Amino acid sequence: MRRKLTAEFIGTYFLVFAGTGAVVINDLTKSITHVGIALTFGLVVMALIYAFGHVSGAHFNPAVTLGFLARGDIGSQDAVFYITTQVLGGLAASASLLLMFGNVAQLGATLPRYSWQQSFVLEFILTFVLMMVILGSAVHTKANKPFAGAAIGATVGLEAMFGGPISGASMNPARSIGPAIVSGTLEHLWIYVVATILGAVAAAVVYKFIHE
Amino acid sequence: MRRKLTAEFIGTYFLVFAGTGAVVINDLTKSITHVGIALTFGLVVMALIYAFGHVSGAHFNPAVTLGFLARGDIGSQDAVFYITTQVLGGLAASASLLLMFGNVAQLGATLPRYSWQQSFVLEFILTFVLMMVILGSAVHTKANKPFAGAAIGATVGLEAMFGGPISGASMNPARSIGPAIVSGTLEHLWIYVVATILGAVAAAVVYKFIHE
Amino acid sequence: MRRKLTAEFIGTYFLVFAGTGAVVINDLTKSITHVGIALTFGLVVMALIYAFGHVSGAHFNPAVTLGFLARGDIGSQDAVFYITTQVLGGLAASASLLLMFGNVAQLGATLPRYSWQQSFVLEFILTFVLMMVILGSAVHTKANKPFAGAAIGATVGLEAMFGGPISGASMNPARSIGPAIVSGTLEHLWIYVVATILGAVAAAVVYKFIHE
Amino acid sequence: MRRKLTAEFIGTYFLVFAGTGAVVINDLTKSITHVGIALTFGLVVMALIYAFGHVSGAHFNPAVTLGFLARGDIGSQDAVFYITTQVLGGLAASASLLLMFGNVAQLGATLPRYSWQQSFVLEFILTFVLMMVILGSAVHTKANKPFAGAAIGATVGLEAMFGGPISGASMNPARSIGPAIVSGTLEHLWIYVVATILGAVAAAVVYKFIHE
Repeated sequence: MRRKLTAEFIGTYFLVFAGTGAVVINDLTKSITHVGIALTFGLVVMALIYAFGHVSGAHFNPAVTLGFLARGDIGSQDAVFYITTQVLGGLAASASLLLMFGNVAQLGATLPRYSWQQSFVLEFILTFVLMMVILGSAVHTKANKPFAGAAIGATVGLEAMFGGPISGASMNPARSIGPAIVSGTLEHLWIYVVATILGAVAAAVVYKFIHE
Repeated sequence: MRRKLTAEFIGTYFLVFAGTGAVVINDLTKSITHVGIALTFGLVVMALIYAFGHVSGAHFNPAVTLGFLARGDIGSQDAVFYITTQVLGGLAASASLLLMFGNVAQLGATLPRYSWQQSFVLEFILTFVLMMVILGSAVHTKANKPFAGAAIGATVGLEAMFGGPISGASMNPARSIGPAIVSGTLEHLWIYVVATILGAVAAAVVYKFIHE
Repeated sequence: MRRKLTAEFIGTYFLVFAGTGAVVINDLTKSITHVGIALTFGLVVMALIYAFGHVSGAHFNPAVTLGFLARGDIGSQDAVFYITTQVLGGLAASASLLLMFGNVAQLGATLPRYSWQQSFVLEFILTFVLMMVILGSAVHTKANKPFAGAAIGATVGLEAMFGGPISGASMNPARSIGPAIVSGTLEHLWIYVVATILGAVAAAVVYKFIHE
Repeated sequence: MRRKLTAEFIGTYFLVFAGTGAVVINDLTKSITHVGIALTFGLVVMALIYAFGHVSGAHFNPAVTLGFLARGDIGSQDAVFYITTQVLGGLAASASLLLMFGNVAQLGATLPRYSWQQSFVLEFILTFVLMMVILGSAVHTKANKPFAGAAIGATVGLEAMFGGPISGASMNPARSIGPAIVSGTLEHLWIYVVATILGAVAAAVVYKFIHE
């Protein structure tokens, strides 16, 4: 468990450091563009899955951990350890960015561009699909499992690409909690906690229903 | 079959939701760019193949299903179920986008930029090659099958990249029917139904001829 | 051999159709950008290798075929058939683009941006490295061969990305001959035939020397 | 060892030629953009790992070689040979670019955009994570090793994407020494030697600690 939590901490830390770092650095330098930010999110998830998947399962995401809890793939005590570690990793990443770059671009906090209802629905769909892809590519007994990292990284990358301009495309409470708390942008944080967890758990339930 | 149709529905729904969603959201926010839209299409196809390929074969495309029907790889009754499900998935995706974003950018409907003849020929070629890549990478007995998802996603991505500005690079009747019907942009829809089906069936016939 | 030549024809046709088509369509619509053109070249090579590699070896490139000839991996008569087919595929692709789009952007002909000497050296290096990657990833007995398509596609994509603005990043006589002849832009064609062949054959010789 | 050093020389040569060449050519032609430069770095690392990984281990980076030395995976004499070869490869690449393009954009030398402290910390983190991904994806006994090239290339690509605008995202003393010496831009070179070596060695130590 110590190894697993270390992997979850380093993984979530670097996912948030790189992804929201791209938002911050793009705000400072105007060079990365939205396409570059979305590619950063997708590639970092892919790389981290191949680096740590065999250690901790590479969740890096409380919504995903809760999805696995809903299926009974992880115990509730372990889930608490995982989620705490992931949130701490995200907070540490945002604190690092604050120290290095100042409170720029709300440290990459996710915010709805238009109505909160629209972003809520979008985050639900994005996380639902992300969890379906995780279950279909990494868990299903007939899955082509070595490619799970590529499939999941691609999903995060494409969802960040098309959904990012509307809701920020969080799909991950730890990715949203870090910047929100450290930058003090708490108003819409609940959307990114509630909608993503509902999406992942709904996917876990639907997937179980389909396959049984 | 219930599982297969569920996979085809979710897959086609999300393919159209993400891909045409990128068009809609780019129209609203000007941030994704054509490059980002094309990458979204390619990555979503790749991710969905690794998530659902082992369940339904991951067609998500009536032209592809008809190509397999022409080869005798799927029965005609199953093909009807598949195609109906795919079209419903596309319609549901466009309806979702309409509810979330309004009738923006014709919901990503495919339209010829110049003459319809030019787009017809281009869609024929694009779908012909897509079907050849599917048969060569996922069906051929000597194929390196684990990489089929990467190859097919790459094909959709690159065809969207270079062909998108001319014809919209549909390659898929379900991807064109959804936005056309829901946004009421029906004038050129027939191109994207006829040319893509002809392309996929032609590829199936040519492939059979070559290998026998 | 009939199957192999069909695969080489279709593969080279579509490589040139997609890659130089991206140049032509970007000239017309200003939407693909140089980054999108380079990605098109890389992705099409990757997709075609997974689609046809097990049929013909997926050369699609006379310089590569001559590299294999220099190593004795292909007989001289077969090499003549391969190269003729590849050149015909490239010509057919450029003729298709001419019919569909008119004589736009010299149909994507490769031209030196500055001095011909500079482009000659660059094409030599680009094709030398491409052939080294082919031999290292697809031929070497200890190679991780399933990934050869990804490695070779990545090489073509990155070389098009950084070398394209200088020399056009041909690396392939068939890719340069098609647009040059069909658009009537013959002046610098010799660079793209001579430098690429020298690069690929040099790599074949160096690789043999290293490993024996 | 002769084969290994040849692979390290060619690999580091081309990594620096392509990556810093993208910086130089973008400065001349304004066509590649920062996104294209970052993709070039990521793709070239991926391609070279699949081409040469089975020959030399595909380090191409003195910091990585020192990380392996700290773990005892390579002997100190071999490490000296590796590092010397890598530095010579980087110098040869920068000399080639100087001859071909003149002293443009400091030949892609890495320079801190803001304070040197900020770039020092960033380079430390970037190289720490790169080394963690290398150990996790290519060395760990349970790693999905065929994907190590994709994971490591993705890491270099995404770190270049988000970190490039701040520190240049070197992660590699050989990549920084070549342009710095050949272009005469030596002032900040020490950052890119010290921080990257500390980052890689720290990752090697931490990784060992976690897994034992």
